[in-house]
Amino acid sequence: MLRYWTAGESHGKTLLAMIDGFPAGLAIDEEPINRELARRQGGYGRGGRQRIETDKVEVMTGIWKGLTLGSPVALQVINRDYKLERLEDLPRPRPGHGDLTGAIKFLGPIRAILERASARETAVRVAAGALAKQLLAEFGIQVYGFVDELGGVAIDRPDNVDDVDTMIAKRDESIIYSLNPAQDPQFKELIDKTGKSGDTLGGIVEVRVVGAPFGLGTHAQWDRKLDGKLAQAVMAVQAIKGVEIGMGFEAARKPGSQVHDPIHYDPMEQESTNLGYTRPTNNAGGLEAGMTNGQTIVVRAAKKPISTLRKPLESVNLETKETDAASYERSDVCAVSAASVIVESVVAFEIAAALVDKFGGDSLEEMKARYQLFMDMARKR
Amino acid sequence: MLRYWTAGESHGKTLLAMIDGFPAGLAIDEEPINRELARRQGGYGRGGRQRIETDKVEVMTGIWKGLTLGSPVALQVINRDYKLERLEDLPRPRPGHGDLTGAIKFLGPIRAILERASARETAVRVAAGALAKQLLAEFGIQVYGFVDELGGVAIDRPDNVDDVDTMIAKRDESIIYSLNPAQDPQFKELIDKTGKSGDTLGGIVEVRVVGAPFGLGTHAQWDRKLDGKLAQAVMAVQAIKGVEIGMGFEAARKPGSQVHDPIHYDPMEQESTNLGYTRPTNNAGGLEAGMTNGQTIVVRAAKKPISTLRKPLESVNLETKETDAASYERSDVCAVSAASVIVESVVAFEIAAALVDKFGGDSLEEMKARYQLFMDMARKR
Amino acid sequence: MLRYWTAGESHGKTLLAMIDGFPAGLAIDEEPINRELARRQGGYGRGGRQRIETDKVEVMTGIWKGLTLGSPVALQVINRDYKLERLEDLPRPRPGHGDLTGAIKFLGPIRAILERASARETAVRVAAGALAKQLLAEFGIQVYGFVDELGGVAIDRPDNVDDVDTMIAKRDESIIYSLNPAQDPQFKELIDKTGKSGDTLGGIVEVRVVGAPFGLGTHAQWDRKLDGKLAQAVMAVQAIKGVEIGMGFEAARKPGSQVHDPIHYDPMEQESTNLGYTRPTNNAGGLEAGMTNGQTIVVRAAKKPISTLRKPLESVNLETKETDAASYERSDVCAVSAASVIVESVVAFEIAAALVDKFGGDSLEEMKARYQLFMDMARKR
Amino acid sequence: MLRYWTAGESHGKTLLAMIDGFPAGLAIDEEPINRELARRQGGYGRGGRQRIETDKVEVMTGIWKGLTLGSPVALQVINRDYKLERLEDLPRPRPGHGDLTGAIKFLGPIRAILERASARETAVRVAAGALAKQLLAEFGIQVYGFVDELGGVAIDRPDNVDDVDTMIAKRDESIIYSLNPAQDPQFKELIDKTGKSGDTLGGIVEVRVVGAPFGLGTHAQWDRKLDGKLAQAVMAVQAIKGVEIGMGFEAARKPGSQVHDPIHYDPMEQESTNLGYTRPTNNAGGLEAGMTNGQTIVVRAAKKPISTLRKPLESVNLETKETDAASYERSDVCAVSAASVIVESVVAFEIAAALVDKFGGDSLEEMKARYQLFMDMARKR
Repeated sequence: MLRYWTAGESHGKTLLAMIDGFPAGLAIDEEPINRELARRQGGYGRGGRQRIETDKVEVMTGIWKGLTLGSPVALQVINRDYKLERLEDLPRPRPGHGDLTGAIKFLGPIRAILERASARETAVRVAAGALAKQLLAEFGIQVYGFVDELGGVAIDRPDNVDDVDTMIAKRDESIIYSLNPAQDPQFKELIDKTGKSGDTLGGIVEVRVVGAPFGLGTHAQWDRKLDGKLAQAVMAVQAIKGVEIGMGFEAARKPGSQVHDPIHYDPMEQESTNLGYTRPTNNAGGLEAGMTNGQTIVVRAAKKPISTLRKPLESVNLETKETDAASYERSDVCAVSAASVIVESVVAFEIAAALVDKFGGDSLEEMKARYQLFMDMARKR
Repeated sequence: MLRYWTAGESHGKTLLAMIDGFPAGLAIDEEPINRELARRQGGYGRGGRQRIETDKVEVMTGIWKGLTLGSPVALQVINRDYKLERLEDLPRPRPGHGDLTGAIKFLGPIRAILERASARETAVRVAAGALAKQLLAEFGIQVYGFVDELGGVAIDRPDNVDDVDTMIAKRDESIIYSLNPAQDPQFKELIDKTGKSGDTLGGIVEVRVVGAPFGLGTHAQWDRKLDGKLAQAVMAVQAIKGVEIGMGFEAARKPGSQVHDPIHYDPMEQESTNLGYTRPTNNAGGLEAGMTNGQTIVVRAAKKPISTLRKPLESVNLETKETDAASYERSDVCAVSAASVIVESVVAFEIAAALVDKFGGDSLEEMKARYQLFMDMARKR
Repeated sequence: MLRYWTAGESHGKTLLAMIDGFPAGLAIDEEPINRELARRQGGYGRGGRQRIETDKVEVMTGIWKGLTLGSPVALQVINRDYKLERLEDLPRPRPGHGDLTGAIKFLGPIRAILERASARETAVRVAAGALAKQLLAEFGIQVYGFVDELGGVAIDRPDNVDDVDTMIAKRDESIIYSLNPAQDPQFKELIDKTGKSGDTLGGIVEVRVVGAPFGLGTHAQWDRKLDGKLAQAVMAVQAIKGVEIGMGFEAARKPGSQVHDPIHYDPMEQESTNLGYTRPTNNAGGLEAGMTNGQTIVVRAAKKPISTLRKPLESVNLETKETDAASYERSDVCAVSAASVIVESVVAFEIAAALVDKFGGDSLEEMKARYQLFMDMARKR
Repeated sequence: MLRYWTAGESHGKTLLAMIDGFPAGLAIDEEPINRELARRQGGYGRGGRQRIETDKVEVMTGIWKGLTLGSPVALQVINRDYKLERLEDLPRPRPGHGDLTGAIKFLGPIRAILERASARETAVRVAAGALAKQLLAEFGIQVYGFVDELGGVAIDRPDNVDDVDTMIAKRDESIIYSLNPAQDPQFKELIDKTGKSGDTLGGIVEVRVVGAPFGLGTHAQWDRKLDGKLAQAVMAVQAIKGVEIGMGFEAARKPGSQVHDPIHYDPMEQESTNLGYTRPTNNAGGLEAGMTNGQTIVVRAAKKPISTLRKPLESVNLETKETDAASYERSDVCAVSAASVIVESVVAFEIAAALVDKFGGDSLEEMKARYQLFMDMARKR
């Protein structure tokens, strides 16, 4: 069982992720974790805070001589902008945030809620996901996310979406983390214009998991289906209001004959994760009946625009009940690029958890041997 | 902690739901449960099986003299069409189902997978949800689902969606469970035509929870956010490929000033669940930062078309690896109406679980007293 | 993840166990389950109810053609003595039962508590454990429990406790399920005498798990240690007030040099579960640092005397607060023999769960291959 | 839901506890946490490490201006003796530790196991428990542990065990944390003598929880019974081999008439946690049917002697399989006093978790109001 929690406030001392059940014997590299942290802080449209923080991960526990021990791995990202004790409460809840609802639920200050509900927390979820990706890489599984739509403008997809390295290279060229850097100027202009008007933008991100074997997740009980677990992990990311798998909502609009992916058999592909069972389409997004089917897993998420507007929305003073502009806390214009990193990270973690569930989690050595064993048995099924 | 699991196969003896943590002292009525079971079996476009089964719930445990005991409540829906032991395995997996992936994961027969992965299992999820609704009703919380789009055709919404009883009456008039029965003939025609062509249809359903108080769910840990839990429950329903909350994917396409719901204060509404904090819009769908905000909760789900086509898709024989039409098991043309009942049920269960989480679950009497206490304290916050 | 819950009341329609995560492909035999159910009903000192019920298990879900499907397995034991709806509440709580505390916690009738808190519920825990034993048997793991002390009288142990079949044969000869049937007459007399005086007896039971491999459980997180899980499972059995592993409380009384089990190596035993690492003693009871160490697992439990006395203890009428004898519900004189079966069952379940945790739970076929793989790798470590 | 995990190695950088679900609005005081950490390091018979470390807690997250936020609380105890990266593997597993079993389970070095399995980890469990005690204190609940038997020598109990402050004062006078400091010299001599002979000592500790209300825990499902949860938490403490509640194993040896606690009613005590339901004895140890019954909760635990002996036990070299003395890592002669602190801490945490389960965990203010509400309703039951 691979599982994790986080702790930490937006302006608190530190952010922590505690990851329990991580296999022993994996060489952890901090550099790729820091790269993902930097990616989370980037993307065109970010504000001042991202320039203050340059997030670095610290692996606090669970390793010895560079290898995981099988102990819990605690990751820390220290807040350079630590000032929580100097901050005061907010008088007026900001629409779209947890300010109002949290203040009432906990019968306390808005500050108590916003510090924890803030998307700043996702820094350690990204760290946890980046760690998970190092485990996945050992099994040839790659996970990458990108921005697919921003501010209502769809982005043209390149033809080939199966060559992961090419796709990642393209994305890394783009200032908004799309697969089509050629469109960047258009988005730069949109973001600039929106920022000047004091408004914010949202968008749609997509995450692809390439190389996952058959049989992660299960159909047998509702709370163990992998599609459900992915949906939970993604929807629980700050500002996400929608999740799709594969064709998603479009699948609801087409006849069955255009949705379901025919099954073919190609002995040439027997050694790949599809075991030879090729599919001319992948509308299912790699998941049927809550289990992976050897195809690429495709998850999409809708991120609403940032809730804190420089031109604030109407709110009320919780003491006086008088209408006034919402309180303002420093914020960005657009964080859809960041969301693509965060959603990528939580998806990666769930896939790693499902992998540990299927192949066991004591040691990398045993996991790998079991992976081979299963592939052999599966090919003989 | 209110939680549940199900057991049972599509053509097995029985389907069971075991519900643990249900409060003591609630009068359970089987009739509304059976009504929901009947609704699940209805909706235009269903096939032969629904005529064989007339599902009835049996409350097996957890009650005495009509009241819940605080013990686990086990619900049973007996399969009249029990014939599992006479059935053989399928040779060719059906695209869109768990047949292929499950047969490989479990290294066994397709039959072993399809019997459990079948949407027949949702009968007891509906029963569990109908039980949950009886608890919610004690707190003035109403949950209703309806079909919002079918086969790619959107359905016009009536103007007033806040008067629950009117909405439910309209829905119950419609043969497809939409809020606009006047459009029914159009859908009858579409379904008939699709059925004749051997194809199937999907659609989009919406569920609304009216009357939920502030503060269900929490922002504090990712795995306890209510939006995440709802997304998991809904995505884990058979054939669901997308979940939205509130404005959902549309929220990703608009600027923040048009998405976030301003906060006003109206002392006249102080006694309602919003405690006077009115919102001119409800684009958040009642959830901010993983917590309910006193507004109507709105969840939408995309159901793909039924996977079993009378004109089967291409598949392969798992033994010979030869291409052939997928095996055919009796099925429907369209089950979007049923999906609206199922999604309604799983949403209701999660809301009830969140209510028990917030207000405790020992006895209805204590829950109610605590509810009043919280409302009083919240109004004074 | 192998997990289970139960439902059902003492005089309700039925008792249910829902077992989730049971591997596919195991041939289930009802006969050994029924044999354990009969054993639970037996043992010298039982009262009238055991003559009314002759428990039989019904496998309601999760099998097809005699093999498990990988679906949840629901087991049912129908109460022949179903009369709950005719029963009234008790006026005076019985000391030692949950009557008083439950009535206050749930603000309701004593009946609501006693029906569920009753040891009758253990019938389905025994059924679940008997199912688990069928899985364990596939890996050469045997579990057996016996009475080690009754009413304060210790029972002489036979010399050889390692030959499981001999031990089981001896136990099955004894009317109190001890390993020393020669002492039976002494206990028959003690029980008869106690019964005549209106009193009840407790005792100590021991459970041994022979053949478990290295590495079940983990040291890495407190809530996943196998000793902790065993302690929870055993202490959560009705009337159990103490749990020991290995030398238990005696270990607290001896110096370390007499407690810890030296490690030797005997290449002749390399093929056994100890992989050649023999221990001249087994004071640890097969568990070190929350993990199995290849030795026999030894768990002991203290069962208090039955709480319902024919010569009732003092209690008060909850309405009038007046002192009076506790209400009387039909009961036994001594159920320590039954407790040995129940504790055996819950221990077996936890070991099976730990086995599934270590070796995966999709299919028996894959589990077995992985078991061999691990043994091979472990021998080469 | 109040829950926690820990992370960290014995000679690693730091030890962490992450506590999720801690109520908002509690003023946290670090000083009593540090006092408990110091107590854990003390007690006669400790070795060199305790002189190197002077544990101090750091509250890393979850507070603002001294009050909890409702966010996860992360506690850190930095290892002054951090040297993990300079340490090498051990060649010969130490009997009684997880060395052998862990090395085989994880197919890796002994170091990987011992660093995490070490009792050093209990420092943060003590910190978590000390935090829990601050919550319990708000409800008038006191928890204290003491040594009841050491090296096989029982300790005379003072007459009055109900006056908590007196008991704690006595215990704090004793160099071994017993309730009878007058016996200290005897134990000092025993420990000195044992240490000189290169051996180690174990003992029995007892924890009492005074002031807990009725109704913590539940009878309704095996995995939610409070006695089971306490047993798990205690048995999962390093070196614990037995757990008892109330009369424990002695209860198995007496007739029912001498075990079960009669129920009386004394209107003078109506305002106390027993609500007037007095019991002349407390053999049940405050728990009946998995629920608290308003009496003092009594938990006892058997701690085996320290596994690392200065005069090492026989072991084998894992590479050569040759017999040799076990490797030696710096250790103590007797840590029973420390165990009394640790067991006290994990018991306190479970009681706090059960309290949050019963009374909710959003804010201290609401918890307190609900506590009063329940007491009022319970008195009227």
